[in-house]
Amino acid sequence: MEGDALLVDPLVTLTSDFGTGSPYVAAMKAAILAVCDARFIDISHEIPPFDVSAASFVLWAGTQDFPPGTIHLGVVDPGVGGVRRPLAIQARGNYYVGPDNGIFSLVLRRTRYLMAVELPRPASVSATFEGRDVFAPAVGSLGRGQPLVGLGRQVEDLVELADPGPSVVWVDNFGNLVTNLAPPVGRLRVGETVVEASARTYADAPSGEPFWYVGSLGLVEIGVRERRADELK
Amino acid sequence: MEGDALLVDPLVTLTSDFGTGSPYVAAMKAAILAVCDARFIDISHEIPPFDVSAASFVLWAGTQDFPPGTIHLGVVDPGVGGVRRPLAIQARGNYYVGPDNGIFSLVLRRTRYLMAVELPRPASVSATFEGRDVFAPAVGSLGRGQPLVGLGRQVEDLVELADPGPSVVWVDNFGNLVTNLAPPVGRLRVGETVVEASARTYADAPSGEPFWYVGSLGLVEIGVRERRADELK
Amino acid sequence: MEGDALLVDPLVTLTSDFGTGSPYVAAMKAAILAVCDARFIDISHEIPPFDVSAASFVLWAGTQDFPPGTIHLGVVDPGVGGVRRPLAIQARGNYYVGPDNGIFSLVLRRTRYLMAVELPRPASVSATFEGRDVFAPAVGSLGRGQPLVGLGRQVEDLVELADPGPSVVWVDNFGNLVTNLAPPVGRLRVGETVVEASARTYADAPSGEPFWYVGSLGLVEIGVRERRADELK
Repeated sequence: MEGDALLVDPLVTLTSDFGTGSPYVAAMKAAILAVCDARFIDISHEIPPFDVSAASFVLWAGTQDFPPGTIHLGVVDPGVGGVRRPLAIQARGNYYVGPDNGIFSLVLRRTRYLMAVELPRPASVSATFEGRDVFAPAVGSLGRGQPLVGLGRQVEDLVELADPGPSVVWVDNFGNLVTNLAPPVGRLRVGETVVEASARTYADAPSGEPFWYVGSLGLVEIGVRERRADELK
Repeated sequence: MEGDALLVDPLVTLTSDFGTGSPYVAAMKAAILAVCDARFIDISHEIPPFDVSAASFVLWAGTQDFPPGTIHLGVVDPGVGGVRRPLAIQARGNYYVGPDNGIFSLVLRRTRYLMAVELPRPASVSATFEGRDVFAPAVGSLGRGQPLVGLGRQVEDLVELADPGPSVVWVDNFGNLVTNLAPPVGRLRVGETVVEASARTYADAPSGEPFWYVGSLGLVEIGVRERRADELK
Repeated sequence: MEGDALLVDPLVTLTSDFGTGSPYVAAMKAAILAVCDARFIDISHEIPPFDVSAASFVLWAGTQDFPPGTIHLGVVDPGVGGVRRPLAIQARGNYYVGPDNGIFSLVLRRTRYLMAVELPRPASVSATFEGRDVFAPAVGSLGRGQPLVGLGRQVEDLVELADPGPSVVWVDNFGNLVTNLAPPVGRLRVGETVVEASARTYADAPSGEPFWYVGSLGLVEIGVRERRADELK
């Protein structure tokens, strides 16, 4: 019975800018299933088109805490078909597969990677859909238990997005502003609004006045109770 | 071989106002997977922000008829971090996990619950993301087969939303108006429009004239053939 | 141990115009799970309401390359409750279940079907939600391994959408225009814009000028590097 653990289908998460309900997401899943059975978790296909920086945030925020061996596919790839390298990376006990364009910057800024390989790009594949033709097969190979080192040539010096300095890196569905600042902070300015109050949570905050709090990612966030902070002037 | 049935991963549905593609949905799934394997079905993450009443409808309409043992996580929670109780409830052979703010009102109005417990809230958890830090671990415990009674202190008097009286409780993707009325009904008024005709289905209805019919939930719905009823004056 | 392969849950894909996060999608999944365990892949629930032609494209583009035995449920059904026939079809080693209104036109234009049956419609079912009450049970039966021939009366002459002639059949999330033309092509006209350039991929294209390329589906697509082709005048 000890071998049974090996029979569990690998977890594969998917993040892209294809749009929810794009048939191209299903096409990537079919290409993975052609190589191995898998349990899929869609993290987001609502990344704004070509926004590698937003993808970097979502991949960092959304892929934390998955079980060892989870494979994270990230495809936001304005340079598809060009010279940038297709990558598979091992970090934090998980795998990350996608283009070498900075999409994994935030993940790798907080966790050094163990190894990265450049995936070969067969001459026959589609020049416009490497998600299906290059990345998905690599996900499938990892899912079958093939070691990373066998998937390609080991590489270093992965592309990293420039650090944007103190800034808002995400706006959640409620209008709260997620910054890249670690607490504590003093006064913050958002547009023309100065944020001085802080609170533990919305329920503790004064009504209508912006405040900062430590969000669920451990970062400083800015909210307004019963209003949207992204509508502050 | 009889023990095999125990090996099936539990079904977990998720409903929230986080937005499709929010990394916070993935974070809840990872927190559940840290406790037990699970098969996830996303019911909706498109509940309008903080709209507990809409969530109550979607949870009732979307979680009917799931197999015994299914666990339904519902997180629409304007009072997160405040005093409202985190709950796990057993009803209709299924489990419901979420805040005690009325989100399960419609489910419980039609099926008495067998038992409800208040989940403990560890001091260390995030004050803004109990979905990940309080509710998801409880889902995981139920998924591992832990009895509800072991998860917290048994409670009564769950919060219920006030009955809104005869009203439209949902507008579907086609513009049809789902009411909370049981058939049959006489004349209905929507804004300035009086609805007198009724039909079995769209195909039987007169073109362009509003009509009522018995929808798939057993409730009276209002539609207009080849038009959207939510655009009636 | 050889029998183990039989224990794998069937793959079921779902495509509809219900809207992402509609409780009716979950209701169809529950109705399938009442008959058999299944692994679900949502292809799209963002088909524009009643747009059978768009559904036909998404079903063709999104269901290619799934493993043998996959069951594809497609419900875009302006005539629900009317006389059109409910179908289950075997083609390309996969099954397609949905209304006989042309929704499977593109799939069947490229692959002859092996067999099609008309599903019986019990008198007791909802006249407005055959997705849950007619199609989902058929998906469940196929998922349990019941042969297609046992599900209904064999039929021919399936409804096909008229061929629209050379046209744009899809606009992807980046604004690229997917045509129904096979390469190579000469000059193309989109509105008032003439497209003469062609390139292998975006990275090879001149900046700002429209060009055509062979997309990942093998069809001619029109793009503009660093802009949206669907905004061409």
